Amino acid sequence: MSAGLKGIRLAVIGGDEREIYLIPELQKQGAYIVGVGFENASPIPGLTLAPSLQDVVGQVDALLFPMFGTDERGVVKAKYSASPIVLNKEVLRAIPARVPLIIGFARPALRSIAENLGIQLVETAILDELAILNSIPSAEGAIQMAMESTTITIHGSESVVIGLGRSGWTLARMLQGIGAHVTGVARKPKVLARATEMGLHAVHFADLEDEIGRAEIIFNTVPQPILDRVMLEKVARDAVIVDLASIPGGTDFEYAQMLGIKALLAPGLPGIVAPKTAGKILAQIYPQLILRHLTTGNGSFQS
Amino acid sequence: MSAGLKGIRLAVIGGDEREIYLIPELQKQGAYIVGVGFENASPIPGLTLAPSLQDVVGQVDALLFPMFGTDERGVVKAKYSASPIVLNKEVLRAIPARVPLIIGFARPALRSIAENLGIQLVETAILDELAILNSIPSAEGAIQMAMESTTITIHGSESVVIGLGRSGWTLARMLQGIGAHVTGVARKPKVLARATEMGLHAVHFADLEDEIGRAEIIFNTVPQPILDRVMLEKVARDAVIVDLASIPGGTDFEYAQMLGIKALLAPGLPGIVAPKTAGKILAQIYPQLILRHLTTGNGSFQS
Amino acid sequence: MSAGLKGIRLAVIGGDEREIYLIPELQKQGAYIVGVGFENASPIPGLTLAPSLQDVVGQVDALLFPMFGTDERGVVKAKYSASPIVLNKEVLRAIPARVPLIIGFARPALRSIAENLGIQLVETAILDELAILNSIPSAEGAIQMAMESTTITIHGSESVVIGLGRSGWTLARMLQGIGAHVTGVARKPKVLARATEMGLHAVHFADLEDEIGRAEIIFNTVPQPILDRVMLEKVARDAVIVDLASIPGGTDFEYAQMLGIKALLAPGLPGIVAPKTAGKILAQIYPQLILRHLTTGNGSFQS
Amino acid sequence: MSAGLKGIRLAVIGGDEREIYLIPELQKQGAYIVGVGFENASPIPGLTLAPSLQDVVGQVDALLFPMFGTDERGVVKAKYSASPIVLNKEVLRAIPARVPLIIGFARPALRSIAENLGIQLVETAILDELAILNSIPSAEGAIQMAMESTTITIHGSESVVIGLGRSGWTLARMLQGIGAHVTGVARKPKVLARATEMGLHAVHFADLEDEIGRAEIIFNTVPQPILDRVMLEKVARDAVIVDLASIPGGTDFEYAQMLGIKALLAPGLPGIVAPKTAGKILAQIYPQLILRHLTTGNGSFQS
Repeated sequence: MSAGLKGIRLAVIGGDEREIYLIPELQKQGAYIVGVGFENASPIPGLTLAPSLQDVVGQVDALLFPMFGTDERGVVKAKYSASPIVLNKEVLRAIPARVPLIIGFARPALRSIAENLGIQLVETAILDELAILNSIPSAEGAIQMAMESTTITIHGSESVVIGLGRSGWTLARMLQGIGAHVTGVARKPKVLARATEMGLHAVHFADLEDEIGRAEIIFNTVPQPILDRVMLEKVARDAVIVDLASIPGGTDFEYAQMLGIKALLAPGLPGIVAPKTAGKILAQIYPQLILRHLTTGNGSFQS
Repeated sequence: MSAGLKGIRLAVIGGDEREIYLIPELQKQGAYIVGVGFENASPIPGLTLAPSLQDVVGQVDALLFPMFGTDERGVVKAKYSASPIVLNKEVLRAIPARVPLIIGFARPALRSIAENLGIQLVETAILDELAILNSIPSAEGAIQMAMESTTITIHGSESVVIGLGRSGWTLARMLQGIGAHVTGVARKPKVLARATEMGLHAVHFADLEDEIGRAEIIFNTVPQPILDRVMLEKVARDAVIVDLASIPGGTDFEYAQMLGIKALLAPGLPGIVAPKTAGKILAQIYPQLILRHLTTGNGSFQS
Repeated sequence: MSAGLKGIRLAVIGGDEREIYLIPELQKQGAYIVGVGFENASPIPGLTLAPSLQDVVGQVDALLFPMFGTDERGVVKAKYSASPIVLNKEVLRAIPARVPLIIGFARPALRSIAENLGIQLVETAILDELAILNSIPSAEGAIQMAMESTTITIHGSESVVIGLGRSGWTLARMLQGIGAHVTGVARKPKVLARATEMGLHAVHFADLEDEIGRAEIIFNTVPQPILDRVMLEKVARDAVIVDLASIPGGTDFEYAQMLGIKALLAPGLPGIVAPKTAGKILAQIYPQLILRHLTTGNGSFQS
Repeated sequence: MSAGLKGIRLAVIGGDEREIYLIPELQKQGAYIVGVGFENASPIPGLTLAPSLQDVVGQVDALLFPMFGTDERGVVKAKYSASPIVLNKEVLRAIPARVPLIIGFARPALRSIAENLGIQLVETAILDELAILNSIPSAEGAIQMAMESTTITIHGSESVVIGLGRSGWTLARMLQGIGAHVTGVARKPKVLARATEMGLHAVHFADLEDEIGRAEIIFNTVPQPILDRVMLEKVARDAVIVDLASIPGGTDFEYAQMLGIKALLAPGLPGIVAPKTAGKILAQIYPQLILRHLTTGNGSFQS
């Protein structure tokens, strides 16, 4: 579309298929991109490969780290990397104050170091707009898992979505669209009112225990121990649970297994089930985000 | 359903068809009801009529005033009343502190007096859950107005919903359900992301000027001068505008008329287009609301 | 779009708002149009007005009569006509065999005369594609009537659609789209199977008697005495019936009135509720229809 | 539900998971069931196992063969059978005229022998109501395959459904429900009109060549060489084709592979993706079917 990133140099460090789709989209918008950790990927036209993180931090206007961020030792998730890329103190110290460090999830350690060093840390996983757009591939991935794991169709099934938030609404709407009878479980009166308006069977968390027994497919989106032993006892033995809440999910998986209930954890789906769409979502969010942090983030950059 | 209002005495003061449907629903839940201003209505079994407001304020556990509240002189909207019912200082002073005064819209004067007198004033029009449920009859009313005013079908039309809030979402979903191509206009990135997920054409307010020219039917829900002269100039002359924002709406009606654009104000629709549903919505919200205010109110009163 | 009617002369005789929208669409496709009975309409650019039917029958390639056709004396429905237009024997005799007479509904008398005289009579009301497209404005009109006549919302209502044919499907889908619980009533197993797939509550005609009591809004599309005395006895007194079947409908209206059930006949809706859309639908169907009859008609004429 | 099969003895011969779900449903309706070819299945309460086909043909009121029927040598598809079950001439001769032979697909040889011997052969695969209900698991299976094979989401994708028949409509509706932009391809004007009403982008087969290039996901339901070399040349190389038409499908799979287009054949999905739902569908159709053939099929049975 627009060439809003014209003249801007970006480093894309690590990542997975999503970055393969993201890079050309950013290039289309005018950005010049340096990649770190793409030695094993098919060549991307126009992408300059840099041998290491140290080589790029001072040369670009913004640093793009992957959604999954780093592990606890600072190793950046990088599917196409030939050697480990480490985001250590030394590298962090070399990042100029004007250069935003954009990353999906930041570990607490990274957050505190960045604060100490005065680095502009931008965590994208907490952005509502990204989470909502990512709920689309997530929901499709969860539905695909349900389709693969059940002996029934989604159509006509009694499906329950626990938690009507960023991914719960998306799931509920899609399940309805296929033809399921969908129950939406939430706590806030205004959320239950909206669920009613959308044609869901709206159920308060307090009443879940009474309703869960009818469920054939259960999708949990709440990162709290909702499907605990007491609740699982009420679940039909041939029901299937798909848990989308961030690890460790909201299900007592061991107990579910003991009861013979199929329960699946569906973590980080966007990049797995639809990397191209997930990459395009990033490409839709990142340009504005980068521009905002370049201009407002740092007066010295403009002067 | 439940008899959660057993033993509770309520005064229903004024109102319209909605109260006619509300009263039996509250009775079903166990409440004893005294009515003020229902002399001209068909008799409601079990309803005790009181001759005046003064007679009831000290005799009941809660006072239910209508959604429209009062006019600026304190006269309560009362469709079935034989004589004016006035909520004046004298009456207000007689209301015990333990008795909540439940009302749709409260005028600023009422608010300040209630505060001075220590009256529990409960304004229901600001409750999200009520507003969302009321958005259902409102949206249907707005769609009915559009159907009556256009020479085209909703199906296949280019429909624009300005503002994706409590009534905007409902409208957008229903228009889609009929078969319109729906554009949703909002400001927040997360709202636009949700609009995209729902299959709307998501447009930022900043871009409305470029998009409005294609619109055949425009629904405004934002109580700000959105459809001003500049914007109206871009609207097709045979488009129809339905403005649901609270009076005076968000449209320059005079200028629209000058341009030959049909523009309609759709205020207070729920009680007009579907009083039975609107009454049932009140009956769904009020019992919990009353109980909450009786317990918390009583507690503070007795201590 | 295309200029598929280039060089073709058409007479549009009588009609209503639909023809006002139809004529420019046909002109856009290249047709030269002569109008009969448009003296009282706002002038249409490029339209030649002919003083009488006799003057045009020999001068054009096809004759377009309105959807409603004629009354029993042959008077053509013509909203904008200054004087009656009569399709009598004399006129019919003057129509060359190569000129198709296109009309919505033809009365039996017209059919037999046309056959005797060897006139190509094309009845468009029996065309499935036209009926299906016209079902869109019809369904919206019926929904608008239901909205105007009920004290409840369509959303959340128990709505029953009797007959799942050309307009029944459209109605059922739209009602679902608004948020109603929709029951579809049909006889054929394959139609009931499709209703189940679409998420309707599928009910066989034989079971209608047991189900009708729950209905809040009833739409009939079957031109047979379905809602007779026996059936009406089972209908709730505050239900609303909208009958879309061709006159006299499928409802015993007198008996309904006696029981206090609101029952409305909704005949010929497309031209009334959405003449522009209805005109565009004609403009979408007629060019191909005309071309087909010119070529095949000509062929048989010349051989 | 009802015990409509009370007193009726049925033989279920071979099959797969569907029969495992079908048998208890038929038992619930009162039928006494003898199974042939279930030695390796988990025991089904109340099911009598018969050692061979010969032993049952004279002892029951109807014979139920599986959807897939037999192979060309007459071997019945039987997933849980310990030894081959053969439907040969000898067996066929032993079937009394009053006993209907119910089978999914019958090979031509079986058809002609049955006719010669005066056997009531009932082919269920040609029943519209069964095909429409089976289109639900088929469509979900096809969507699951598309989800597994693409790097994009269904939501927001350009999806094309070729053929709007028994499974095409179901697919189109579900894809829409998820959030795809759906193009429906058909030939008959009335089918295209219905597609328009349903909100599909309606395209005539004659125009498919011009439209196919935009497609990201293509579902074919027409058992004719639609996606031939000429058409495939126009398909995007990263599009995915899911072909649901009966073997050999409507795609030139070899040529697709040569072009690098992913093309998948999705045959016989209901029993694979959702055997429980597929079994319940049979249980919904079979009782009426059996009763119809028992009563009308043979006068001698009743006497």
